[in-house]
This record gives sequence, structure tokens and C-alpha cells, in this order.
Amino acid sequence: MDVRKWPRKNDADSIRARQDALGLDGGVAEIDLQPFVGAQEMLTGAAVLPVAVVGPLELELGDYELREPDGAVVESGRTHDSILVPLAHTEGGLSASLHRGARAVAESGGFKTYVLADRITRASCFVCGSAGEALELARWIEGELDAMRAWLGEQDDPSLSKFARLREVKTHVVGPMCHVLWRWTTGDAVGANMMTRNSYVLNLGYVLERAPVRPERSILEANMGGDKKPSFEYFQRGHGKTVIAEATLTEDAVRRVLRTKLEDLQELAWAGTHGAVASGMQSVAFTPATAIAALFAATGQDLGMVGTSSMCHGAARRVEGGLQVSMRLPGLEVATIGGGTTLPYARRWLEVLGCAGAGKVYRFAQIVAAATLALEISASAAMATAGSAEFFRAHHERGGLR
Amino acid sequence: MDVRKWPRKNDADSIRARQDALGLDGGVAEIDLQPFVGAQEMLTGAAVLPVAVVGPLELELGDYELREPDGAVVESGRTHDSILVPLAHTEGGLSASLHRGARAVAESGGFKTYVLADRITRASCFVCGSAGEALELARWIEGELDAMRAWLGEQDDPSLSKFARLREVKTHVVGPMCHVLWRWTTGDAVGANMMTRNSYVLNLGYVLERAPVRPERSILEANMGGDKKPSFEYFQRGHGKTVIAEATLTEDAVRRVLRTKLEDLQELAWAGTHGAVASGMQSVAFTPATAIAALFAATGQDLGMVGTSSMCHGAARRVEGGLQVSMRLPGLEVATIGGGTTLPYARRWLEVLGCAGAGKVYRFAQIVAAATLALEISASAAMATAGSAEFFRAHHERGGLR
Amino acid sequence: MDVRKWPRKNDADSIRARQDALGLDGGVAEIDLQPFVGAQEMLTGAAVLPVAVVGPLELELGDYELREPDGAVVESGRTHDSILVPLAHTEGGLSASLHRGARAVAESGGFKTYVLADRITRASCFVCGSAGEALELARWIEGELDAMRAWLGEQDDPSLSKFARLREVKTHVVGPMCHVLWRWTTGDAVGANMMTRNSYVLNLGYVLERAPVRPERSILEANMGGDKKPSFEYFQRGHGKTVIAEATLTEDAVRRVLRTKLEDLQELAWAGTHGAVASGMQSVAFTPATAIAALFAATGQDLGMVGTSSMCHGAARRVEGGLQVSMRLPGLEVATIGGGTTLPYARRWLEVLGCAGAGKVYRFAQIVAAATLALEISASAAMATAGSAEFFRAHHERGGLR
Amino acid sequence: MDVRKWPRKNDADSIRARQDALGLDGGVAEIDLQPFVGAQEMLTGAAVLPVAVVGPLELELGDYELREPDGAVVESGRTHDSILVPLAHTEGGLSASLHRGARAVAESGGFKTYVLADRITRASCFVCGSAGEALELARWIEGELDAMRAWLGEQDDPSLSKFARLREVKTHVVGPMCHVLWRWTTGDAVGANMMTRNSYVLNLGYVLERAPVRPERSILEANMGGDKKPSFEYFQRGHGKTVIAEATLTEDAVRRVLRTKLEDLQELAWAGTHGAVASGMQSVAFTPATAIAALFAATGQDLGMVGTSSMCHGAARRVEGGLQVSMRLPGLEVATIGGGTTLPYARRWLEVLGCAGAGKVYRFAQIVAAATLALEISASAAMATAGSAEFFRAHHERGGLR
Repeated sequence: MDVRKWPRKNDADSIRARQDALGLDGGVAEIDLQPFVGAQEMLTGAAVLPVAVVGPLELELGDYELREPDGAVVESGRTHDSILVPLAHTEGGLSASLHRGARAVAESGGFKTYVLADRITRASCFVCGSAGEALELARWIEGELDAMRAWLGEQDDPSLSKFARLREVKTHVVGPMCHVLWRWTTGDAVGANMMTRNSYVLNLGYVLERAPVRPERSILEANMGGDKKPSFEYFQRGHGKTVIAEATLTEDAVRRVLRTKLEDLQELAWAGTHGAVASGMQSVAFTPATAIAALFAATGQDLGMVGTSSMCHGAARRVEGGLQVSMRLPGLEVATIGGGTTLPYARRWLEVLGCAGAGKVYRFAQIVAAATLALEISASAAMATAGSAEFFRAHHERGGLR
Repeated sequence: MDVRKWPRKNDADSIRARQDALGLDGGVAEIDLQPFVGAQEMLTGAAVLPVAVVGPLELELGDYELREPDGAVVESGRTHDSILVPLAHTEGGLSASLHRGARAVAESGGFKTYVLADRITRASCFVCGSAGEALELARWIEGELDAMRAWLGEQDDPSLSKFARLREVKTHVVGPMCHVLWRWTTGDAVGANMMTRNSYVLNLGYVLERAPVRPERSILEANMGGDKKPSFEYFQRGHGKTVIAEATLTEDAVRRVLRTKLEDLQELAWAGTHGAVASGMQSVAFTPATAIAALFAATGQDLGMVGTSSMCHGAARRVEGGLQVSMRLPGLEVATIGGGTTLPYARRWLEVLGCAGAGKVYRFAQIVAAATLALEISASAAMATAGSAEFFRAHHERGGLR
Repeated sequence: MDVRKWPRKNDADSIRARQDALGLDGGVAEIDLQPFVGAQEMLTGAAVLPVAVVGPLELELGDYELREPDGAVVESGRTHDSILVPLAHTEGGLSASLHRGARAVAESGGFKTYVLADRITRASCFVCGSAGEALELARWIEGELDAMRAWLGEQDDPSLSKFARLREVKTHVVGPMCHVLWRWTTGDAVGANMMTRNSYVLNLGYVLERAPVRPERSILEANMGGDKKPSFEYFQRGHGKTVIAEATLTEDAVRRVLRTKLEDLQELAWAGTHGAVASGMQSVAFTPATAIAALFAATGQDLGMVGTSSMCHGAARRVEGGLQVSMRLPGLEVATIGGGTTLPYARRWLEVLGCAGAGKVYRFAQIVAAATLALEISASAAMATAGSAEFFRAHHERGGLR
Repeated sequence: MDVRKWPRKNDADSIRARQDALGLDGGVAEIDLQPFVGAQEMLTGAAVLPVAVVGPLELELGDYELREPDGAVVESGRTHDSILVPLAHTEGGLSASLHRGARAVAESGGFKTYVLADRITRASCFVCGSAGEALELARWIEGELDAMRAWLGEQDDPSLSKFARLREVKTHVVGPMCHVLWRWTTGDAVGANMMTRNSYVLNLGYVLERAPVRPERSILEANMGGDKKPSFEYFQRGHGKTVIAEATLTEDAVRRVLRTKLEDLQELAWAGTHGAVASGMQSVAFTPATAIAALFAATGQDLGMVGTSSMCHGAARRVEGGLQVSMRLPGLEVATIGGGTTLPYARRWLEVLGCAGAGKVYRFAQIVAAATLALEISASAAMATAGSAEFFRAHHERGGLR
């Protein structure tokens, strides 16, 4: 086949034509693609990842609601749950390690999790004639928030999403550029497309039509946010769901389950924090991306958001009764509706978590945070132990490093 | 079932017991898990992602070899290829967009890619009694590189990997901490486990045994690298494979295929670069993670490495004949052997790319880079067009924003 | 003299005793220290820097007022002025270069400057028993802003400054730490001491007394701001005075005064922006600190704030009629009253600028910004020219690189 | 006077003419400018800062030599000294605080300091036709180091400095840009001008003449270093002199001299480190710039380098016998010859330190580091105490917050 005439549709014949052109038979071409034909273009086969189920996480989590109209996340209650988590990956040891971390925390009294904030942002930019004009535009935009909300509510443009609600706007002027961060909430969906469409309409239908200065150029996305790229803006200010998970490890659980000592974990946290600073790492953590990728792959999340969702600020300190460890995950871009979450396999794993469908996204975000902390604890323990010369001698030196 | 007695083995009965406990039947529980029983623990089912095949990428790529003993990547030739790429994801429009970017580049003369460096690093730390001792240790370690290489070669410890070759060592002293970056090459595998084992043996079997000062504590990993966390250390210095992809878009291709103008793309690059700076983003790029995640998911790469592998420094400038665009991907952590790449579905997609098995990793890294640039080009064009008031009016205002 | 009995007072005898002990006579010991005895402790002599006066800067600057109660900076008018600037330093060429830059801009139509914001921040921290408690505290603090303002207004504690007005509060929870940024305005003083005292009283007299949770520890300053250390928080959000200076260089002025070409300056800006990104530099600029240090040293500003005040985001682009260049200086920590500005020599140089005393700080901040841009333009031109092979050959190769 | 005819020379008449034009008489116009006429242009008067002398610092410092040809800093011995330090500034309390910190360390056994590295860097850039050409150029440049050194040694171009010795070269390719970091040592001078001239000759006389590819453009400085702007490149890799200062505070000294507790200092370090991370601060420290600016102003250092020289990575931990505190100052750009150090007042203060002239720069760098740590310790103690509710109540609440 001349690949320059690559068929682009998702009807059965086109799929088959592509498979034939590549000689695909069985295996990757065997899984029924019918449920996926609306999900993306030029479907040709499937990828499969094995899924473990581990746990349970013993978890005290919050119930949350959005306050109108500012979109603050307000806690309305707290409940306890025991949750088994599905992990899709092929890294030997990962599932066992997360399981071990969950057990250590369970024996120490469980995890507590909190949702701090909920936002999704489009970072548009209006290039003006001068810094003076950009500043005038910025001041005007900041004053129009309520009017913009009202205007959006009045439109019946079908390209607009009613789920995406404008919550805040932040402007930042650099030379003639007026960068604008439109901050939305989008319910239980990640909402990237919704808020993109709405921001687009806002830029062209509202700002360009009414602004007191005429921008030379309107750019829908100009990178002042952190769309799939970690940024300090989102590391500090948050994106998607900002969640904290915390646990206090008892000396006994650390010794018995994690096979290390509180002091070793504390020293590791100290050296690891300073190592992170020395490397110019924004995060302070060991391995959040590992757990997050495994949960994302199982549940139909956007894997391009693994990097941003793994931004993490961890901290540890000795308290009476053990070691208090916590992770602040400022940018969990997760969903329980829309995108990959509606597709057969992912949906099923969300159901296992009790997180399928509307009204579940804060629960899901908290489970992801707790699971991430579980793995971090276990991986840290492994590294702390690995420093032990006794352990090494026992395994490597009897009889001359064998 | 009492989930606290969760079965932990991967024999058929344990798998079935877990599935039963969760009520899993059909769907996620239907795919044969036998090929995956060695891949991870507590297997319970499967996750499935639909895979598109798009392209081809018209690509001039380099052939590379490692120079002994320093592990520099040396180009031994350049070849041309037309490559169709598999993309596993559920983001509508992504496959079509990458396809469009590939076409625009094909009509402009194709991609060129280069591998600059190849390293995998373990960031250990020796906590000494004082800064003075840490400095003495650091100077000694830096002088022992050749001796360490020889020593590693002489051991017949089965826990050591012969594929992981020690190439460089970098020390960095902060207070009493002597951070040590052990830099390895690991052939066509990512090599995280190999170099971890070797670093461990080096720390305890060599450094602690022979160093002129006695560290108080040896830590296998203390975060001065960037293991699954983006860091400036790796953004600049590189990790995994450091690759550059470049193309020069012609005015004609930009107009016909991308439906925008050279000037619009250039202005977008300018505003986007300054937006990235203003947001404290380390990368300068729009959406590298999207393409990288889709290629990683199809080919069995470690999805926890999507964030680090997506670090990117892009640049664009007008040249005679068009717009020269490039991406520097400093940290592509990719493999063609080991880990998930050996498993059924992933292996097949690597074969489609001509990248399955030994001797293929530099080819694969270059394809990933070119595909990432293809998507970046098309996504940029979409954003440039989206600024157009004409486009907006045509779609939204006839008859009053409907 | 036994230096362990070093006299610590500033009476004439103690000063003389210290001078004698060090054998200081004439020179450093000759300048009358009487005006300085209240400025710092253990006075022993003086340091002298030569001061140039260059310019004038042709400058259109804004008049500004603070809006109550939120402390927004509001422009109330714009005026033009020609301003000669004093520069204290010993770097050959600097004064001449800044002078040249000022002339190039004067011939191009002058500078325009804008004040965007005004804040001084104390970054306190309350360490609580858990993340849950820290979050409860954070929510409470954010809701108390008005009440805190009222409370501060009612106190007649003489340790409180009435000039320091609380404008905003921002909380940020990491684990059990509730970091709190108290944001003040302090009139024409930098106000570091004022806002420190007020923050202290607020922490202990208000927060600890009334908060719904009992913090374990209150820390007056815990580094979440950027007190004399550049930080992303202040690079983006601003500190002290946030100012933009802009000019549009004409082709003619660039050629005649700066001896280079618009295109060369533009290419330099492009490469320099990407160089800054590659080096992990927060600023995008060449040499703002040079001008700022020279102006600070002449006018009695805090030289420990040179680094933070020099944070800079510069941008350049071609426009009709020339090259539009601008600098965003987010953190100019300047004063026209208090601290070193009241002392004899500094006061006189502030008078030369028309900036001595109350009501002058926004004028002064704008002059600093314009002078900084003047030097940046001239230094950039020198670097652009320095790339010229013709220039090099003319000077170095006639007769064989002599 | 028409300021557009501003006289530009430094003869007595021109100086007087400028003073007259500004109405300067006495005060700033009184100090003899004769010694400064070669230091900078358009001299018009003087700035004066009061100087304290405090201490002594009890200091064990290293003697160092540069190894040929790589320029490694090698320790050849260690000595003890008691050193009084001059501080030029107008910040009330600073001198007393640094004095207190010095005393606390003296009672705890003194400071130890170490010089780790010595470099000054020019970050040039060659813009090539493509990434491929830039990579070819980079590889060639990295291989020419020895030949370049030899070539520089053979030239008798008077514009070249023989004091500036090329030690290393680092290349970094982004798109068509080949950034080149030329790393020099420059003896006891900071050497900015020397290495600039030498880099210029190297770029145009060597690289452009011999390189296998023809760059389109050569840029002398393109910001990939950190010339007067803090950068991660220099924070980690170092610039000027990289120095560590360390001390172990005893419980007794902390209680008696600093009026706080080891535990309070340790908790402050913990919260302050996490605060720094949360604010996107590169440094981990409280107030290094304060001490560095005061020492720089007294001793004729370049005040534009206060920000870069104040980059700092501090760490603290409990050890037997007290709290071990240290600061890594990676970029101390200091001199004991050249620039402002040769001028009357500055020279005298360098003499007080035993640091005037050749062969003294490593001694000076270490004194700066120790003094900086002294202030940090005392300032930290003040903040730790300030958290105390008891202290507050004692001062503010007796009789109702007066």
C-alpha cells in the first residue's frame, strides 16, 4: 500500500485495510475496536496493560462541594473507606511495594486526605501595541469577571459548554503581551476541551468585541499556565485538583512492615529534600509519577497529564508516636466522566474504586493521592534499608561478593 | 472476602479469586493474563487502549554507536526512512493532528533527528561527619572512576548487570552531604533496575570499603538526579536519550496543510516562550507530553517516565524558505528491550516501527522525537488559527453567536 | 587590644578606640561619622564610591495612588520629564554606556514607564498538628482579612507601624505547615522593619489568640516569600514596586547612536532568551543588576536587595518603525524615606533626581526602571556589534592579530 | 545648562561644570575625586557609606592553589585566624547581629571554610544554519580545548589577558544555536573584562576561522551562564569562587548567646527549607545577601554581583554536641586586585582583613562565607525567638498590648 494514501476513517474496512497494510493479525488486531471508534482517529489495533489490584487503602476522605460563584472547594463531611486500587503497568515490584505501603499505613491508623482546590486553566494572550495598552487591557479584563460570567450564561452557542464555569481570571503583562489565565471548574470531567472552547468564545466574542484597546493579536494558548508541562505556576497555585494526603507511621509499623527505622526515613527525607534543591527539581518527592501513571492507565485518565499530575511537595517530620508524612499534589488532572473514563475497560476499573460517573471526582482524586503516598512510603523504606551496610554484607560478601 | 487476606500470587487460582472478590467478569477479566504473570504482582485483569497508526513521518535519522570507555554517542551515518507510528490514547483529534503535522513536514522536506547523549543516573548520597569530610570523599570518588570501572568488570556477583556500564561520576557537596551522580549506559534497555543494583554494589562494596573517610550513612537515591521527576539537572544535562528533531516548514505547506501563516506561527512561538518564562515552566513547548504518552503507551515504555521524557526546549526562527522549528528532548527514557517492551502487544507495535529488540533504541528515540515535533507543529497551527477573528466570526456570529 | 573586648558603642571614644586598634588614620577614618551614629552599630570608618551623573533620560512616567482598602496602584495622570541620574560604582564604561542608551532612546521618542503593583511581604508560618489543622487555620486566616485590618487599626501598641497597611493575605499549606504571606504597603519606605513588627503582632496577638486551631509553633519568617533572595513567587507576583519600562528604538538611532542594526538586536534577544532558559535563569535580561546597584548605592537603598530588585523579564519585537523593547522589573524594593535614604550623601542624590522624601517613591521606581533599560539597550548593542567579524578583523588582524 | 550638552570628561573643569549645573556644593561634592577619575566616566561627586568593624570571626580556613592545566582548586594546608570584618551599610541591627553570630560560633569552636572551585564564564553563542551544523560545531569545539589553550598562549595581541586562563569549555545545542560556556580562571581579579576580551578573540580569531561549519552569527554573550543574574547553571555548577562555611553550634552557645534553643533552630530550618521550595526560591537560606552586600560595599567589590554572589544552599542537622549548620555559596564573585579593590577606601578595608592584593582572593572568599554564616545564624535565632508566645506576652500584653 502507498502509505501516502493511508485511509483515515474508522469504519471496519478502513481499520482492516490499515491492519492488512501493516500485516497485523491476531494479538493487537484481535481486540474489538468498536467501542473505541469515537475515541480517536485511524484506529488500527489495541494496546494492553496488565492490571493488579492491591490494598486496601484505609482512608479517611473528605466530601466536597463547590461554592458559588467563586468555585471554592468546601468540605461538607468526612468518611472512612477501605479501598482496593487497580494499577496498570509492567514494572515488577511496584504493585507489591504499593501494597506494602498501604499496609504500613493501615497499621498506623490510616491515611487522611483533603481537597484544597479545583481549577482548569486556559492561558490565553493578547498581544497589544505597547505595554501601556496591555496594562489597560489587563485592568479592564480583571474588572469584567462578573460581566463575563453573566454573558457566558446568556449565550446559547452550542459550542459553549455549560459545565465549564468561569471562576477567576488572572492577568500578567510582559511588554506588549497581556497574558490571561482563565480559570474554570468543569465538574467531574478534566474539561480541557470545554474550557478551551469557552475561552475561545470569551477571547473573540467578548474581549475583542468590547475591550477599550484593540489587541493586535489574540492567542488562545500561550503557555503561561502549564498545559501538560509542569510549571511553577501550577506547582504552587494548583491545577486540576489540589490534594493533600497524610499519614503518621508508627515505629512498630515501620519496623515490622517496612523493615526500617523512623530515623532512617527521616534522614532520607532530609537528604532527599536537599538533593531535590541541588538538582533544580521543582518537586520534593521520590516516585509519585509511578503510582499516578499506574492508576491513570487503569482508569482511562489522560496519560499526557502524568507529568503535571505528579508534581508533588512532600514533607516528613517526627511527631509523638511516629513519623508524620504528607504529600501535596497540586495538579491532579483527573476525571470520572468524559474522555477515556467512559470506555469499557477504564470504566470497569473506576467502578471497582467506586468512582465511575458524576459526583465522584473528588473521591477519585483523594484515592490517587493516598495510593501515591503509599508507594512513596514503601519506596522510601526500600532506599533507607538499601543504605545499610549490614544488609549488603549479608547478601554480597559471604564467600566474596556473590 | 476479607480484603486484608488479599491473595498475592499470580497463579490462576489467585487471579481468579481476586476477580471473583471484585465481581469482575468478562471485559477487563477476559484478556489472557498468562503472558503478564512475570511482569507485576497481584494481577487481576487488563486495561486496553485503542491504537491508531498515522503518518508516515518522512525522517532522516542518524546511526549511532557508543564510544569506549567514556560512552559518548558517535554518529556513524545517516539514513532516510518513512515511518508509520502507533499512538495509544483516547483523545479525539490527537491522531489526526499528529498526522497533519507529519504531512506538513513531509511536504517541507522532512524531519532530521540527532541523538546527542545517552545516560541513566542513580543519585546516591553519603552523609559524612562534616563538610570537610564530604569534600574529601567527593575528591576521592572523582579520582576513582577508572578503578571503579575495572573493579565492576572483575566482580562476578550475579546481582550486577554487565549491560550497565559506568561512564561518569559527578559529585556535589552540600554541608555534610556528598551527593554522587553515577552515570551509566544500559544498552537498549532503560536500565533503571540494572544501574540501581550496580550503584548499590558500588556504594557498599567499593565506596564504603575503601573511602578515606567513613560516611555516617549511605543513601542509594537522594533525589539529586530526576528519577521520574523533571529537574533542571536533567533538563540541561540530559537523561536517557537526548535527542533533537528539526524541520523547516515551507510557506506553502504551512498555508495548505496547516491553514495558517509563517508569521502567525512565529508570533505564537515568541509569546509562548515568554509565557513559559512567566509561568516558571522549565520547558518551552506546547504539548510534547501528548505525543510521548501515546507512543509510550503503545510500545510498552514506562508511563511513569512520561513527565521526564517530555521535558523539551523548543525554538523557532524564520529562515530563507520558511520557518525552522526544532525540539530538544533532553530526557527520553526509552527502551527496545526489557520491561514492558517484551510483552505481547507492545512488542508488536515496536515491530511496526522497526524498533523491536537490540540495537534499535536510538532509532526509536529519534522516531519519538520526530513524532513529538509533528504534533507540536500541528497543535501550534491550530492555536495560531484560533486567534483569528475572521474564523470566529464565520463560525459564531452569523445570526448571533449560535 | 584584645578583640574579644571590642567596644560596641558609637560614642566618639569607642569609634576612636576601634580605629586605633586597627591602625586606621586618615582616609577611611577621616569622614565625619556623626551623621551615621544612629544608622548602624560599631561604626569605625567609611566607604566611598565615586558617583557619575549621566543622561538625561527622556521619560514619560505615571502618577499613582493607592486605592483603599485593597492597595491597588491606580494611575492618576502621566507627565514627561528629563532626568539626570547619579550612578555610584567603579566599573569603567558603565556610565558612558548607560548614557549612550539614554541618548538612543531620547532620539527614538523616549521611555514610557508604568507602576503595576506595590507590596511588601512577610512570609510567616504556623506549624500545626496535622495537614487537616493547617488547612482549617488557612481557611480561617483567609476569612479574617477585614477583621485583622480593623484590629490593627484599633491597637495603640507603639511597636506597631501605622504606615504599614495590611492589603492581602495568601496561605499555602504543605503538610502540617500553614505558610502565610502577609502583604502590606508601607508608603514611601521599603518598610521591611514596619511590616515585620506588624506581622509579629498579628501572628501572636491575633492569630494565636483567636484561631480555631492551636498551632504548635509560630515562625515569623519561613522563606515562602523571597526576602533578599530571588524567588519565583516574587518574579511573577511582584514585590516592592512592580514596574515596566518600554521604548521603541528607531532604525536610525540604532545605527547612529548604538552602531548596530535592528536585526542584530532582535537576534540577540532571541538567542539570549533561549540561553536564559537553558541556564535555568529566572530572569530574561542581560545586565539589570549593574544599573540597579549603581543607582541603589548612590541613593541609600538597601544593597542587600540588589539581587531581588534586579529580577527582570525583558522582551523585544519588531514593530513598524523599529524595535520595541521592554523590561518588567517585578521586585523593585526602593524607598525615598527611611533607612539609608535619610543620610547626608544619599539624600543629596535623591534630591538631584527630584525624589527626596514623601510622595516620591513611584517616581523613583520608574526612573530606576528607565535607567536599567537604558543600560540594557546599550550593553545589548555592544554584544550585537561584538559578533561582527568585520569589526574584529579591523582591530585584530591587520598585521596578524596584534 | 542644556543637559543635552552634558560634559563627558573627567578633568577638573568638567567635573566642576557638572556639579555647578546640579547646584552641588559641599557634601557629595567635597570628597576628592582625583583617585577615581580612571574608575568611571562623568564623575560628579561621591557616595559615602558608614562602615562598622565587628567580630572577630574565629576561622579555620584553607590554603589553595590552582592545578595546571585544568584549574582544579587544590588545598595545600589549613590555618586558623581571628578576623575582624568591615561592614558598609545603613541597616540598624545588622552589625550587632553579625557580631552576635560570630560570638556564638566562636564559643562553639569556630567556623571552618573550604574553597571548592574557581571559574569565571563567558556564555557565547554561535547561531548556525541548522541543528545538525550546531552539533557538528559543538563536537569540534569540545575537542579543541588543548589547541585553543596553546593558541591563546602564542598570541601577543595586547588586547588579550594573560591572567585569564581557559580551563574548560561546555557546549549546549538548542535548535541551530550552539551555546558555548568558556570557563576561565583569572587569578585574584574577578576578571569579567579579561575573560570577555579573551572570549571575543577566541570566538572570532579561532572558532570562526577554523570551525568545520560556518556559523551565521557569533554572539559574545547569550545568557546561558548567569552574568549578574542568578541561574541554576551557576547555583549548582558554581561561578567565581564556590565556598562552603560550616560550624557546629553548641547547646550552651545557642542558649546563652543566641537566646534560643537547638530545637527551635532546627524546626526553623525545616520550615524554611520547605518555604523556599514552595516559593520557587533557588536558594535555601534566610539572609545571605545582607552580609555579602555589606562586605562588598566596604571592600570595593562589584555591587551588581550581590545577587549572584548571594546564591546559597544552606543545611542544618542535629549532631552529637549541637546543631551543625552550613552554607554552600556557589558563586562568590570576589577580587582582591583590580576594579574597585584598588581604590583608596576599599583598599584600606581589604588591608584590615589581610586581603589586599595578589594571592589573597581565596582567603577573602572564605571570610565572606564565614561572615555570611555568622549573620544567618544570628538572624535565624531572632526568628526562632520571635515565634515565642511568652516573649510576645511579656512585651505586648501587660496592661493591654502597649
